[in-house]
Amino acid sequence: MDKKVLLIAGSKSDSDAVARCEEYLDKLGIGYETEFCSAHRDPERTSQLARDAAKNGFEVLICLAGMSAALPGVVAAHTLLPVIGVPLDGSSLSGFDALMSVVQMPPGIPVATVAVGKPGAANAAVLAARILALTDEGIAKRLKDYRESLK
Amino acid sequence: MDKKVLLIAGSKSDSDAVARCEEYLDKLGIGYETEFCSAHRDPERTSQLARDAAKNGFEVLICLAGMSAALPGVVAAHTLLPVIGVPLDGSSLSGFDALMSVVQMPPGIPVATVAVGKPGAANAAVLAARILALTDEGIAKRLKDYRESLK
Amino acid sequence: MDKKVLLIAGSKSDSDAVARCEEYLDKLGIGYETEFCSAHRDPERTSQLARDAAKNGFEVLICLAGMSAALPGVVAAHTLLPVIGVPLDGSSLSGFDALMSVVQMPPGIPVATVAVGKPGAANAAVLAARILALTDEGIAKRLKDYRESLK
Amino acid sequence: MDKKVLLIAGSKSDSDAVARCEEYLDKLGIGYETEFCSAHRDPERTSQLARDAAKNGFEVLICLAGMSAALPGVVAAHTLLPVIGVPLDGSSLSGFDALMSVVQMPPGIPVATVAVGKPGAANAAVLAARILALTDEGIAKRLKDYRESLK
Amino acid sequence: MDKKVLLIAGSKSDSDAVARCEEYLDKLGIGYETEFCSAHRDPERTSQLARDAAKNGFEVLICLAGMSAALPGVVAAHTLLPVIGVPLDGSSLSGFDALMSVVQMPPGIPVATVAVGKPGAANAAVLAARILALTDEGIAKRLKDYRESLK
Amino acid sequence: MDKKVLLIAGSKSDSDAVARCEEYLDKLGIGYETEFCSAHRDPERTSQLARDAAKNGFEVLICLAGMSAALPGVVAAHTLLPVIGVPLDGSSLSGFDALMSVVQMPPGIPVATVAVGKPGAANAAVLAARILALTDEGIAKRLKDYRESLK
Amino acid sequence: MDKKVLLIAGSKSDSDAVARCEEYLDKLGIGYETEFCSAHRDPERTSQLARDAAKNGFEVLICLAGMSAALPGVVAAHTLLPVIGVPLDGSSLSGFDALMSVVQMPPGIPVATVAVGKPGAANAAVLAARILALTDEGIAKRLKDYRESLK
Amino acid sequence: MDKKVLLIAGSKSDSDAVARCEEYLDKLGIGYETEFCSAHRDPERTSQLARDAAKNGFEVLICLAGMSAALPGVVAAHTLLPVIGVPLDGSSLSGFDALMSVVQMPPGIPVATVAVGKPGAANAAVLAARILALTDEGIAKRLKDYRESLK
Repeated sequence: MDKKVLLIAGSKSDSDAVARCEEYLDKLGIGYETEFCSAHRDPERTSQLARDAAKNGFEVLICLAGMSAALPGVVAAHTLLPVIGVPLDGSSLSGFDALMSVVQMPPGIPVATVAVGKPGAANAAVLAARILALTDEGIAKRLKDYRESLK
Repeated sequence: MDKKVLLIAGSKSDSDAVARCEEYLDKLGIGYETEFCSAHRDPERTSQLARDAAKNGFEVLICLAGMSAALPGVVAAHTLLPVIGVPLDGSSLSGFDALMSVVQMPPGIPVATVAVGKPGAANAAVLAARILALTDEGIAKRLKDYRESLK
Repeated sequence: MDKKVLLIAGSKSDSDAVARCEEYLDKLGIGYETEFCSAHRDPERTSQLARDAAKNGFEVLICLAGMSAALPGVVAAHTLLPVIGVPLDGSSLSGFDALMSVVQMPPGIPVATVAVGKPGAANAAVLAARILALTDEGIAKRLKDYRESLK
Repeated sequence: MDKKVLLIAGSKSDSDAVARCEEYLDKLGIGYETEFCSAHRDPERTSQLARDAAKNGFEVLICLAGMSAALPGVVAAHTLLPVIGVPLDGSSLSGFDALMSVVQMPPGIPVATVAVGKPGAANAAVLAARILALTDEGIAKRLKDYRESLK
Repeated sequence: MDKKVLLIAGSKSDSDAVARCEEYLDKLGIGYETEFCSAHRDPERTSQLARDAAKNGFEVLICLAGMSAALPGVVAAHTLLPVIGVPLDGSSLSGFDALMSVVQMPPGIPVATVAVGKPGAANAAVLAARILALTDEGIAKRLKDYRESLK
Repeated sequence: MDKKVLLIAGSKSDSDAVARCEEYLDKLGIGYETEFCSAHRDPERTSQLARDAAKNGFEVLICLAGMSAALPGVVAAHTLLPVIGVPLDGSSLSGFDALMSVVQMPPGIPVATVAVGKPGAANAAVLAARILALTDEGIAKRLKDYRESLK
Repeated sequence: MDKKVLLIAGSKSDSDAVARCEEYLDKLGIGYETEFCSAHRDPERTSQLARDAAKNGFEVLICLAGMSAALPGVVAAHTLLPVIGVPLDGSSLSGFDALMSVVQMPPGIPVATVAVGKPGAANAAVLAARILALTDEGIAKRLKDYRESLK
Repeated sequence: MDKKVLLIAGSKSDSDAVARCEEYLDKLGIGYETEFCSAHRDPERTSQLARDAAKNGFEVLICLAGMSAALPGVVAAHTLLPVIGVPLDGSSLSGFDALMSVVQMPPGIPVATVAVGKPGAANAAVLAARILALTDEGIAKRLKDYRESLK
């Protein structure tokens, strides 16, 4: 199975949200690779992952981060692929800080933001499926089945 | 030019944000069609627009709405295409209400949320370009040129 | 006992708030029927429930939902009966997201919003009683007794 | 025309929102009486208005107030009629203060809260129409026509 | 010992905060009487307590309430004695709702607001001591000793 | 007329709110003295003003400040007189910052907080009147007249 | 080892955050002294600590405080050394109150504010290291090693 | 005059805040260089400016940015010099978004955050002066004079 999604989380402490996202990617039959890389602590590797994403065959990036969650925006600055951002809620400000950091991107460099925390981690996978389904019939079929199963 | 983006705004009073989005879609050479349709005042037409979007050849939907901004979520509930939501800031609560309504979607039905107001309206177009560029070389080329022009 | 209230909750995970509402409806001797139906995951059934509510004899609808709580507004868009909305607090944003989504309805389609969470679920039943008491003497009598018991 | 709605505003400075509400009541052919009375500055008259409302033939009360908007809750404490509360946005906190004060009522004494400011003032009239339409065919007819006109 | 402070709490569920306030009143040697009375559920008794406070010899009132905390403002509307308000944090909105309701009083009817929850309940007693110390040397002496003990 | 109230404002830019407070003190016939003194820029003079207040015959202090409004708390730390704090709304955060800084005092050192901005500045004077009326019959009489005039 | 950092916490209840800060200062080989001193409860000692800091050889001050966190600002008012402020999250408002109090300093008296709670306590130490590294090669070396270790 | 401060603003639209900061740097006699560079639109140049700052002789960096203000954090990730962040308030969310993005940095990479908007821009210069004064007697002297002038 081709790895179409590159999933990057800002910290090992985000593993629960990562697992939720992976569970949904598996359910939708989407190949992915997971990296843990902080935009603030390891900026060179972050931009490298972003710059190489397209040539490595990825089509969508999912970035999960908490607090001053720069990861999705920094990744979006180094690639032209669609970037989905998941604001996480580990801090005392309940993910409100991460939401502000992820969604309020300036004109030119968008991040497709989903809900705070695990519901958002799940939806990041479904949003990736909606994008990939534009050209992948297998994913389109599984997305449709999944959609029906929600009723 | 194929119309690939269906742009729906909840109210005629959202025209400024709509114009900003259209300006960016034009700049990126993306064909689109614009509808004004309120999810709350005209729910049947809203769901009809969403349900017909794929068969009418649209590949991405952009929905702009303020206050209790149900439009993007309702549209996302009636299509499997990627839906981009722009929370608008016309009310006394500065778009904070719309942001909460658009981004906090429950698991299963994601909305790709961008920033509040006009910056988000611009970025919705750019995000659509990133998605469409996965399969459209012309858009990919113009997106790349636009990206370079930002520096 | 006539079923006058249709209670709709967006998710099985809202059962505690639903039970609180039912407890108060029972206490006030108001007949009701409970449905679990997500506005986002099952929009057709949601609008069907709303459209059929009047002809099925319901006079008031109570809708409970969390996060981007579109349910009350979507239901209000498909019926002319009074709709009471209860914003729930399951997400990391403490129900603040749901409150914004439920109360900030645009002109034309009102939702009668009550407090976040269980206190609101209780009050939704009491508000329904106040509305129904306009024409139902039994409910009026029980509402008055309940009101006295609060002192 | 019977006066079915008692509209109370906390302050003469709320006249714009009052006018919006009256405009919608007129449009829906609902008789009303308007009083200006502060729950904090004239509590006796406030409770008297509330206590006499039912015997004076009113069926629904609409209360508009800003800041620490106690009016709707105080009125709801002195009557068993349905009370609709409109939080106003005149203060430096943009109506957020009034929203908290109006919607977060404790169990037992509900206030049917609508949106902050003028959109809420309009919707208060429409919500009153939905309640009154349960027993008044004229209002039901006009509400239906109004509802159709929104599309 | 003269009872100089009338302490009113909106609900039996506020007992912990009440106990904290009483502990500080005891520590400062201030006589008080405690009542539980909801401004919304028992408005007549609330206004009666407030109206009788001065003639019953009380000099300061302390009111604790959560959610849409109308109690301090309603009491302040029925007396000319200084009223101290303590916003409580029992609801899902962390006392933010009560803070807005207590502090944002309209011109003419002030409430002396202290911090949310137990720290505020303690400080309400100390603030009462500061007021009473203007004319009571015993309290002034104990307040001074308490103040020194804090260092 | 004895000067019973010491009014301190953090900055000359707070003059409008100061004027509002003075207007109400005049109306209630309360003698006062006004100082402009920043707790952050001139801490020694601030603490001196607070320490000397009692011996200079003042009985109540009113402190107005915006942003990180430390003034009321710092003054309260240097006197045992009751201190009334008025959070001002000059900054981009609409006085929300000042409200947090003024009201959330730690146990032991209370500040009697009133509403944000000019309504609070007015109410600070009325609250001072309520405190001073405990021992000053003239103020008590004028407070009563003022109270009646509000109806 | 020279003591270059004076760490002041507003309350013994802040010990966990203090320990986190000390752990990072130790890790970076920075000498420090820790004091517990409340700006509100012991203002003289607070200003004394601040005024003596430079002559006692300290070069940076770190101040941790919760609620209406005046400590960092008050300290900054009494010294010309750089002051780092850590807003703590012990209250019901999740540290949001402390953040507003610490960061929104008026022009002239800055506080270098870091994140709310323990992450901020850690970062206060790292920020102190960045400042001290300008002139201390040992700290510069250890800061660089620490920085590398984060990748 | 040595250029000790590198001032970077995210956008030409931030010129007013930049001018305020420069005015204070001039007043304090601190040499500086100003660059306009967006972390999101021109990430390579941003990281280059940060990486070269130390070797170019700068000792402190001041970064101003609005919305999802990644600039200060990204710069801090590429240098070991102290970085001061100024959250700007151009968006509909009043700078609240930028504040969250700037201050909530994860452990390891601190940003010294000052107030939102122009007051913060002024204070960034003063904070830089406090840091530089540790080793520059001229700046120390001017900072002291400036400090005295505030009283």
